[in-house]
Amino acid sequence: MTARAGIVVTGTEVLTGRVSDRNGPWLSDRLRELGVDLAHVSIVGDRPQDMLAALGFMAEQGLDIVLTSGGLGPTADDLTAEVVGRFQGREMVLDEALERRIAEIVRPLMTRWPNLDAAAIEQGTRKQATIPAGAAVLEPVGTAPGLVVAPAQKDAGPTVVVLPGPPRELQPMFAQAVASGALRRALRGATTYRQRTLRLFGIPESEIAETLRVVERDGVRLDRLEVTTCLKRGEIEVVTRYEPDAEDAYDAFAHIIAERHADTLFSQDGSSVDEQVAALLKGHTIATAESCTGGMLAARLTDRAGSSAYVRGAIVAYSDDVKVAQAGVSAELIERHGAVSAEVAQALAEGVRERLATDLGVGVTGIAGPGGGSEEKPVGLVWLTVAGPGQASMTRSVNLPGARADVRDRATTVAMHMIRRALLGS
Amino acid sequence: MTARAGIVVTGTEVLTGRVSDRNGPWLSDRLRELGVDLAHVSIVGDRPQDMLAALGFMAEQGLDIVLTSGGLGPTADDLTAEVVGRFQGREMVLDEALERRIAEIVRPLMTRWPNLDAAAIEQGTRKQATIPAGAAVLEPVGTAPGLVVAPAQKDAGPTVVVLPGPPRELQPMFAQAVASGALRRALRGATTYRQRTLRLFGIPESEIAETLRVVERDGVRLDRLEVTTCLKRGEIEVVTRYEPDAEDAYDAFAHIIAERHADTLFSQDGSSVDEQVAALLKGHTIATAESCTGGMLAARLTDRAGSSAYVRGAIVAYSDDVKVAQAGVSAELIERHGAVSAEVAQALAEGVRERLATDLGVGVTGIAGPGGGSEEKPVGLVWLTVAGPGQASMTRSVNLPGARADVRDRATTVAMHMIRRALLGS
Repeated sequence: MTARAGIVVTGTEVLTGRVSDRNGPWLSDRLRELGVDLAHVSIVGDRPQDMLAALGFMAEQGLDIVLTSGGLGPTADDLTAEVVGRFQGREMVLDEALERRIAEIVRPLMTRWPNLDAAAIEQGTRKQATIPAGAAVLEPVGTAPGLVVAPAQKDAGPTVVVLPGPPRELQPMFAQAVASGALRRALRGATTYRQRTLRLFGIPESEIAETLRVVERDGVRLDRLEVTTCLKRGEIEVVTRYEPDAEDAYDAFAHIIAERHADTLFSQDGSSVDEQVAALLKGHTIATAESCTGGMLAARLTDRAGSSAYVRGAIVAYSDDVKVAQAGVSAELIERHGAVSAEVAQALAEGVRERLATDLGVGVTGIAGPGGGSEEKPVGLVWLTVAGPGQASMTRSVNLPGARADVRDRATTVAMHMIRRALLGS
Repeated sequence: MTARAGIVVTGTEVLTGRVSDRNGPWLSDRLRELGVDLAHVSIVGDRPQDMLAALGFMAEQGLDIVLTSGGLGPTADDLTAEVVGRFQGREMVLDEALERRIAEIVRPLMTRWPNLDAAAIEQGTRKQATIPAGAAVLEPVGTAPGLVVAPAQKDAGPTVVVLPGPPRELQPMFAQAVASGALRRALRGATTYRQRTLRLFGIPESEIAETLRVVERDGVRLDRLEVTTCLKRGEIEVVTRYEPDAEDAYDAFAHIIAERHADTLFSQDGSSVDEQVAALLKGHTIATAESCTGGMLAARLTDRAGSSAYVRGAIVAYSDDVKVAQAGVSAELIERHGAVSAEVAQALAEGVRERLATDLGVGVTGIAGPGGGSEEKPVGLVWLTVAGPGQASMTRSVNLPGARADVRDRATTVAMHMIRRALLGS
């Protein structure tokens, strides 16, 4: 039987969307590796009754474990430990040894911020060391301890793993929780799943839906595969999860996708276009000249550790005279064709390639909106050129949908795919 | 009595964190404007029983309305309409007029993608036009209609507003839903709240916690204010929600914050540093020369519509010889002080200011990691200079915590605050 889990994310700032939750996705990946099925994620504010209700819901669903994130700080509105204690029917007790360990951690911070109120700090430390009786402690990475809290009555409900909100603290502390006996007991009998990801670029999602029907018609056991498709930053991601003995069904499925979508399927091993471009750039150098993307493509290329081996730099030529003075685009060319044109994209790519002495140069110029569009050149029109390697040169235009931020983001994705194709020589 | 709402976000890709949900936060803001209290957000996969369980949970909590997002597409795994119909005790019926309207919308797409399978499209259209009997239809912005579905038995539970997943479709369709009679009935008697935001930069969160204690000691009715503080991209955001008659309590609260944190409180009206910098840059021009941030600062400055009025461009000088050739940094300076130094940050700022002929130049150079750090210059060390306006020049270093992406992002925030201070002349 597959173990099932839920995640309760706490915090008014997450509930109201002012902070986006990074822990749910990360924990979801870890659970999948452990063969645990994630059934529900619940986001609640800092109100104890709402948190209790969410825990109660998870218990009613018959889940084996519940992970909580957040609400472990030193202040009075950090209520998770107390709420989980109440939920599991356990009294709150001060763990004096834990209190001393937290005080040790806090001491250097007090030296760094000499104006802090010592009494307030002590009070916060005592609060953080007050935990449900019988809970296993996960040693703090920051100042907050985590907890593994089983129900007071054996097998009366899910084991709750209480983790702090900051991802840097949560991640190593979850590893501790996995190693702890209490969590392992809740996880006994977990099935392992395999998961494979395919990525496509340049076709509508409905085409994949149609292919799924073809796959089924061809007799592939789709009922053995849990297939989800989604559109993400202009790419289609097809993720399939299955039990190990359904490998044949998956192979047949992947084979049909590869046959029908040979020209748009760019990743069969789940690698992203960013990873592929990074690998293909080995032994090359690249520079970008960007207008509408304003440096986003350079930022994306340098996002990866080690990118200094191939990224030399970029020219963000937002105004036309910077295009002329810094990227070597001729003023006459801009005058004749307009700044958003095939000719200027080419000149930007060639110009930055020459000036920064790289073997690939990328030029991007477009109308991100909301203003600046015309009937002939609407908002969303972007011209891109990849010059190099060698004599190769590729120029294309796209009409990107969406708001300013979408157009800019999507344009960087198109550029990444063009760089990939240029390096593959196709 | 305050109306209370829940949001059910559907989709395995959101549950597993491969796509981050943008609808929850947006809907949360709209609900707040309507004076509706958001109590729970639940994320479920594409399994009907999980979606039903989440709806059941929302009903048990006594919520007045539930909004769902996603699962309205033409494919068989898009189940939301059917699940909500079952939940509300309503039969599914084909709305033939709606079917014709969707077919009208789909027709041009079929012309654009001539290889689509017409029978499959028809089947998808029929599926999307099959809705719970008696539901109010929200006209599609994409191809999927939304729904407002009241329980079959009057007042037997929450009204469910069914919205599509893509934000571009969801947003206008939510406005339709607000205008519809069914939703207005569920919202009767909603209290209006006020919400105010303060932002601070450059102090630890615990200092704000201490100030909250002082505020209470000074007799401010904190019980009338719902205060949440959170650390976000290196800034502290203090959001307070209150009923209109607690305005005095809020004023007293805001006054104490302003007194105690005069040097770090940069926003009393909720404006972001990006908005402030954009306003302050009116009549100025700016350019950046970036090493470790790789174009992120230029991308951030050009994120806003209208930024072409003051952003002229940027030089991303990722390699040292680009620093020399493009930004005019002397090779000898780099040799003597290292690329990550006060001197090189200054030279980058001065160089780009001169070459791009702007009145402000910004230089950023640092060690984003994970490699490249040393005892003397650890990962996270970033030097920044803002040169201008006029003779003014400001250079500082920061030691930023976190992984590569955090260091890069945080460095852009520090730069934004330095630009703000330079423009304020302080």
